[in-house]
Amino acid sequence: MIRVGVVGASGLAGGELIRLVSQHPELELTFLGGSSSVGRRPSELHPGLRLDLGLTVEPVTTDLSGRCDAVFLATPAPVSAELAERLADQVPCVLDLSGAFRIRTPELHERWYPKVRRRTELADRFVYGVPELVGEELVGAPLISLPGCYATAITLGLAPLVLGLGLDIRTVVVDGKSGSSGGGLQLRTPDLHPLRSGAIAPYAPTGHRHAAEVGDFFGRGKPGTIGSLSMSAYGVSHVRGLMASSYVFTDQEVDARQLQRAYLRFYKGRPFVRVRRHTETLIPVPDPQAVLGSNFCDVTALHDPEGGRVVVLAALDNLVKGAAGQAVQALNLRFSLPEETGLAMQPVMPA
Amino acid sequence: MIRVGVVGASGLAGGELIRLVSQHPELELTFLGGSSSVGRRPSELHPGLRLDLGLTVEPVTTDLSGRCDAVFLATPAPVSAELAERLADQVPCVLDLSGAFRIRTPELHERWYPKVRRRTELADRFVYGVPELVGEELVGAPLISLPGCYATAITLGLAPLVLGLGLDIRTVVVDGKSGSSGGGLQLRTPDLHPLRSGAIAPYAPTGHRHAAEVGDFFGRGKPGTIGSLSMSAYGVSHVRGLMASSYVFTDQEVDARQLQRAYLRFYKGRPFVRVRRHTETLIPVPDPQAVLGSNFCDVTALHDPEGGRVVVLAALDNLVKGAAGQAVQALNLRFSLPEETGLAMQPVMPA
Amino acid sequence: MIRVGVVGASGLAGGELIRLVSQHPELELTFLGGSSSVGRRPSELHPGLRLDLGLTVEPVTTDLSGRCDAVFLATPAPVSAELAERLADQVPCVLDLSGAFRIRTPELHERWYPKVRRRTELADRFVYGVPELVGEELVGAPLISLPGCYATAITLGLAPLVLGLGLDIRTVVVDGKSGSSGGGLQLRTPDLHPLRSGAIAPYAPTGHRHAAEVGDFFGRGKPGTIGSLSMSAYGVSHVRGLMASSYVFTDQEVDARQLQRAYLRFYKGRPFVRVRRHTETLIPVPDPQAVLGSNFCDVTALHDPEGGRVVVLAALDNLVKGAAGQAVQALNLRFSLPEETGLAMQPVMPA
Amino acid sequence: MIRVGVVGASGLAGGELIRLVSQHPELELTFLGGSSSVGRRPSELHPGLRLDLGLTVEPVTTDLSGRCDAVFLATPAPVSAELAERLADQVPCVLDLSGAFRIRTPELHERWYPKVRRRTELADRFVYGVPELVGEELVGAPLISLPGCYATAITLGLAPLVLGLGLDIRTVVVDGKSGSSGGGLQLRTPDLHPLRSGAIAPYAPTGHRHAAEVGDFFGRGKPGTIGSLSMSAYGVSHVRGLMASSYVFTDQEVDARQLQRAYLRFYKGRPFVRVRRHTETLIPVPDPQAVLGSNFCDVTALHDPEGGRVVVLAALDNLVKGAAGQAVQALNLRFSLPEETGLAMQPVMPA
Repeated sequence: MIRVGVVGASGLAGGELIRLVSQHPELELTFLGGSSSVGRRPSELHPGLRLDLGLTVEPVTTDLSGRCDAVFLATPAPVSAELAERLADQVPCVLDLSGAFRIRTPELHERWYPKVRRRTELADRFVYGVPELVGEELVGAPLISLPGCYATAITLGLAPLVLGLGLDIRTVVVDGKSGSSGGGLQLRTPDLHPLRSGAIAPYAPTGHRHAAEVGDFFGRGKPGTIGSLSMSAYGVSHVRGLMASSYVFTDQEVDARQLQRAYLRFYKGRPFVRVRRHTETLIPVPDPQAVLGSNFCDVTALHDPEGGRVVVLAALDNLVKGAAGQAVQALNLRFSLPEETGLAMQPVMPA
Repeated sequence: MIRVGVVGASGLAGGELIRLVSQHPELELTFLGGSSSVGRRPSELHPGLRLDLGLTVEPVTTDLSGRCDAVFLATPAPVSAELAERLADQVPCVLDLSGAFRIRTPELHERWYPKVRRRTELADRFVYGVPELVGEELVGAPLISLPGCYATAITLGLAPLVLGLGLDIRTVVVDGKSGSSGGGLQLRTPDLHPLRSGAIAPYAPTGHRHAAEVGDFFGRGKPGTIGSLSMSAYGVSHVRGLMASSYVFTDQEVDARQLQRAYLRFYKGRPFVRVRRHTETLIPVPDPQAVLGSNFCDVTALHDPEGGRVVVLAALDNLVKGAAGQAVQALNLRFSLPEETGLAMQPVMPA
Repeated sequence: MIRVGVVGASGLAGGELIRLVSQHPELELTFLGGSSSVGRRPSELHPGLRLDLGLTVEPVTTDLSGRCDAVFLATPAPVSAELAERLADQVPCVLDLSGAFRIRTPELHERWYPKVRRRTELADRFVYGVPELVGEELVGAPLISLPGCYATAITLGLAPLVLGLGLDIRTVVVDGKSGSSGGGLQLRTPDLHPLRSGAIAPYAPTGHRHAAEVGDFFGRGKPGTIGSLSMSAYGVSHVRGLMASSYVFTDQEVDARQLQRAYLRFYKGRPFVRVRRHTETLIPVPDPQAVLGSNFCDVTALHDPEGGRVVVLAALDNLVKGAAGQAVQALNLRFSLPEETGLAMQPVMPA
Repeated sequence: MIRVGVVGASGLAGGELIRLVSQHPELELTFLGGSSSVGRRPSELHPGLRLDLGLTVEPVTTDLSGRCDAVFLATPAPVSAELAERLADQVPCVLDLSGAFRIRTPELHERWYPKVRRRTELADRFVYGVPELVGEELVGAPLISLPGCYATAITLGLAPLVLGLGLDIRTVVVDGKSGSSGGGLQLRTPDLHPLRSGAIAPYAPTGHRHAAEVGDFFGRGKPGTIGSLSMSAYGVSHVRGLMASSYVFTDQEVDARQLQRAYLRFYKGRPFVRVRRHTETLIPVPDPQAVLGSNFCDVTALHDPEGGRVVVLAALDNLVKGAAGQAVQALNLRFSLPEETGLAMQPVMPA
């Protein structure tokens, strides 16, 4: 059994990590870390959970040497930056779910995370963990930075075009729509149910740091390029799941059949990315309701010849494939387990 | 009192027309038309209404000569095309809420409404009724075609750029998000509550006829131009209200202050378009929840220098400013009443 | 014009009062009072409102002598208790929407509102304002206490049995279901959208002070009696509107026809209580969605011979008939205006 | 591996059975039956599922001799009545999820299921499968009738009082609140999203056949008794999960501590019934959102001395513990597998 710790046990991603780790046949939860929740049991923090783990939350400052083989950090970025520095010496593998180590380019990091101080040396050692795209890099990696929920969807949506077909994209316009769980459980008036229910709240209309993260990632790769990428993000009236719509403009010729083939080929054998035909089911997909509770990311690329563009849709559960599930998937690869170990649950739908 | 009729009394737009007409101090409802609902009272069809109008639904074939000064058609486009032809000779003013007469260019009409046969002569006599934009044309008009709900939001959002600043726009990418009431009450499995709740359903990802309508409208005007306009539309998990996001790319220089001033100037004195600062309230606006039940359209234009674009947000209640309310507003102008007569209700929020 | 003030301008009931007063033809808003919101304009506090009232929020300590003919207190009960004491001498009519003066019996008040100190003399001068039930008492009244939202629904539901038919009821079991707006906009973790959406939260399973209020009210009246009344209350997954289900057990004989007749007779001529047949529309009613935004209370009494009981259903919009609307209705009667002045809006449905 | 078939593959319960069977380590899906969906693959019918089962839907008339060890019937009651008759001879175990065989007393069955003809001999052979209550009866049973979703919650809620404490209950008043998935996917106007969202729809205000089922079950048992049981049921504005509130009046003395102890003792060692303290987590429980996607039923009994009653709350996921999950649980016991095999998933929350 691989012994794992979860720091940030009281948050939504922390709760989801506890849920997934407890259902995983090769993992044993040996540490829960937090600050305001020290001393609490998981079921006190997360009303859905009923687990006899014999664990209560301990201070984040606890020394984990010899107690954990891997630690998940589901903490705010400034906290993660600090903890990673310290835990890197205590445990064989640190998996950070925050934004602290996602953007590699220092200037870009400072532009979007001005309050997150980190050592560049440390940052350079992190593998950016989109498991479908980084190949063997995760095996044995000591430090893994998990992409943002939107970044995961956008990146998985665009990769077959940029990395598969090698397109040179002039412009991508991203429109993101997400449920309220993406904002966590901080006490903010606009997140109260009466104001968030029924809303289409343009909370980041002219830019989002996940877009910067995507640009930074593709800027490191080949063969294709992305000229410019802009993004707007909206909170809509459900709880779990997001949709990233990428409107792609390129001067190269593409057609519907070529797109479908490229996507199928690119994700062949990858268990968690489902290339879907837009009309294959009774509801149009991708749609986040069709991945709820699962680690799937559904993607489709549609040709819009009249609009002179490719429409890429990607939907995922922001707490699973966009956070805790992807982190477990990365850990599986890190420890050379089959990728889908403990993650084979089908979506809960309708919900 | 102006005597008005409502045809299509059992649908959502029909119900909303009955609600608004009954609250209007200068209008008297003298006719309700329908087919499957003949013989029913309004309160049987619309559980919210409790009105002693002494009216039941009559067949759409009823001769209205001498009974109505104006008739609203809240019928499917093919039915509207037929009824308009006949009623044009019976009543002084026909206001059509369907798509039958929205697109003026014949080829474009046929492309998007292949099943809606109409005489070009008749179509040419219709005024396209965005009250804020067509000036005096509505006064005395015998035939008025009301814009689609999305078309209203997009057009009001872009007009200050195109018609006010006279920009030449290279590309507009429109992303539309709407509640389930936009689809009416037809029995379709994907519209059942278990499947529609929690969804982000990409029902028109590569094009929407309201976009064609917008292009057709601006193509007739001056001084600015729109090079290309593409649109994707999504159903999200609430009932009433929509948001149209227009991502505008132009080679001309614009800045935030100029945008704000241009929008304020363009809509000065227009009671139903509210130019909003994105951050002026406790929730980011425009947001359709902040216009619910009212005839307001909230608009904002944001400068995104990093993305090289202008982000235009427009939110409205699809059943009021996007349908019945705008129709009453057009009727007010048609009969030279003050524009806001019977339409001064403030939004019901939160709801 | 009657000059009115609203204290507690930033809350949900305060916002609804501003909405209704601004649409009322005989009222002029001359004062807004608050504490944390001093200096703000209404549209800054309530994103839906766009009103040029020329008013900003002033401190609650402002002397209102000569400025207002009536003042609404939409403040927490302890604040209302203090303000009423002071304002009683400054303005001709104080209308309190809190629980400070609802329960007349001192012991019962102390049991349910232990932190609300009030002078018994002052409390005795308040008229308990269910407009449909207190007859002429409101005319000219200087002090009016508005019932709680649940209390209004339960009382209007039971009155035709107790006061109309004069039944002696053995037991009433009340089950209340309400939307999240009933809880206001205080920052509490369980009221955040991710936790409140999809919930059926038993927040008051063994008792609710509105039930005490109902018992206190009927205890003062005649001819019928209520032996015992228990209540459980649940928060469900919508925003606006509540349903009170009263399961009534009596040893006297009743039948369906007698019930229907008794309810119709009792509320004959009362514009805001709609006695509905359960099956008269396409959705079963009463249902709070069918009264949204309006001042209606829909009631039905159903005979359940197999269960040996009468099932009374009452639905209303908790912010209108359950708060601001009923307060304006009471003010209308206080100043001898027609009861429905400014309150004739039909429900906004679907929403 | 136990070979199982699912008849009624296109419905919500059918989809949930496919989900659970595919995640079960000891079951192999070897047959899918249906009528309108013949020839379709599971992922075409259920947008969430992505399973390579190599199965398509076959006609319900298919002979299953030698193909299945157990068959689930997720079909309407009249269809189940027919199929059970035939399949009883073809497969070792038939598990019926419909109401066809739930009520044992013939007169009561005819009163509530007038259209469901069944042979009394066949009906008498069915075990009524609340796994927590029927002990060893399920082991080896050839015919199992699964309780209704509400019946499961009510029965599990009352059993510690009736069967554990042996109380003689005078009256139980049940108030049921359920999400829209309880109604399946039939095309009915009131179930369309615009009308079902935001509703509190009293769809069965004076009685529900699940209440008859509960009475029939407890009437067969001992030691306690239930004098009368009435029920009202409401559809509320979420998708998955229900709450059954039972208001229990008894002449015997009970207190809070005794209740808590009785419930803990009664369900000791039963993995799927969680006896919860009402206030043990950050949201009040039981609440169906805290069991979503899982096979848990959360129960609490609260003493209400002022109301002279016991308030019993029980929450479950109507598609899991209220349908497919409980059916798999019964099958586990039938084939002497550990009760929780394949059902150990924790709730997905928030969702």
